[in-house]
Amino acid sequence: MTSTRRQRTGPRGGDTRGDILRAARESFGEKGYDTTSMRAVARAAGVDVALVSYYFGSKDQLFAATMELPVSPSELIDRAFDAGVDEAGPRLVDTFLRLWDDPETGPAFVALFRSAASHEPSREMFAESISTAIVNRYATHLPDHSTRRASLAASQLIGLAVLRYIMKLTPVVEMTRDELVADAGPTLQRYLTGPLTD
Amino acid sequence: MTSTRRQRTGPRGGDTRGDILRAARESFGEKGYDTTSMRAVARAAGVDVALVSYYFGSKDQLFAATMELPVSPSELIDRAFDAGVDEAGPRLVDTFLRLWDDPETGPAFVALFRSAASHEPSREMFAESISTAIVNRYATHLPDHSTRRASLAASQLIGLAVLRYIMKLTPVVEMTRDELVADAGPTLQRYLTGPLTD
Repeated sequence: MTSTRRQRTGPRGGDTRGDILRAARESFGEKGYDTTSMRAVARAAGVDVALVSYYFGSKDQLFAATMELPVSPSELIDRAFDAGVDEAGPRLVDTFLRLWDDPETGPAFVALFRSAASHEPSREMFAESISTAIVNRYATHLPDHSTRRASLAASQLIGLAVLRYIMKLTPVVEMTRDELVADAGPTLQRYLTGPLTD
Repeated sequence: MTSTRRQRTGPRGGDTRGDILRAARESFGEKGYDTTSMRAVARAAGVDVALVSYYFGSKDQLFAATMELPVSPSELIDRAFDAGVDEAGPRLVDTFLRLWDDPETGPAFVALFRSAASHEPSREMFAESISTAIVNRYATHLPDHSTRRASLAASQLIGLAVLRYIMKLTPVVEMTRDELVADAGPTLQRYLTGPLTD
C-alpha cells in the first residue's frame, strides 16, 4: 500500500489527483470541453500528461470526474430540512449560497455550470444530477413529494447563482448572503409548502 | 439605392444578413466563440465567406451583432407595466416566457445565454445588457426605483429560463406557460412591490 500511496501523491508530494481535477475544472469551465486538452490540464496542474492518463484515462473520463460534486448535496439538503419543512426555505437558500461563496467548492460549481451551459454531454450529466441529487431529494422532504414544487425552488436558487456568480450582475453581487436569504427565503418556502396552481 | 439593395439581398435573394446572423448565433451558441469560424458560419448560412466579412467585418464584430436582441426588451417591459406595477409580476413572467418559447426569438436567447456563460467578453456584454435593458428598465417602473428589487425579479426569470430552455429539466419543461405564470408570478410581484429586507 505504501508504494501505491507514494505513487498516488505524485512528484510534488501533494494531492496530485486533486490538483489535476482542479486544473481540469478550471479549463473545462473557462475554455470549454473542445478546447481543453489533457496536455494543457497536465501543464496547469504541474504534472506529466502520463499522470493525467494514469488517474483518469481519457479526456471524457476526466471530464466526468470533474462533474462529481465536491460535496454531498443530499446530506446538505437533509440538514436544511432538519428543523422541519416549514423552515426549510430560508435554510436552503443559505446552504446553497454558502456552497457557491466557499472558495473551496464555489469555483467547481461555476466550472460545472459553464460546461453544462455550453457542452451537450455535460448538460445531460448536469441535468441528471440536478434532477436526482437535488430536485428528487427536495421532493422526498415535501408532504406531497412534488417534483414540481422542488423544481420551482431549484429555479429560484439557480437564478440567484447565475446572476451572482456567472453573470456577476452588480446588485446581486453586492447583496450579502443574509440579505439574499431574507429576500429569497420566502420564495423557496412558498414553492415548497405554499398554495400553488394544480 | 436599388443596386445597394440588390447587393444586400445576396445571391439567394433572401435576407442574407439575417441568414448569417442566425447561423452565427447557432454556432456561437452550440460550439462557443473559440471554435466558431467566419468560414463555418458562411457555410452554414449558404453564402461566401466574403459576404460575412462584407456585412460584419471581423469575427468579434459578427459576435457583437449576434448579441443584439431580436426584440426591444424595454418596449416589452413597458407594456408589462401598462396595467400598473401591482399587476406587473405575472405579466412579466408571461412576457419573458413567450420570448423564450417563440421559435423566432427563443433560439437566439438560448445561444446568447450559452455564449455568455462560457465566454468572458460575451458575459460582459450580456451582463451589461441585462443591467441596462432589463434591470434598470424594471426599476424605472418601481415606486422606489430599486435595482435590487429589479435584480431579484430577474433572478427568478433567468432561473426559470435556465431550467426550462438550457438544462431542460423535466418538470419545468413539462409545465405550461400559464402554470409557470401562476406559480412564479407572485414571486415576481413580491420582489417588485412586497415587503423586503432593508
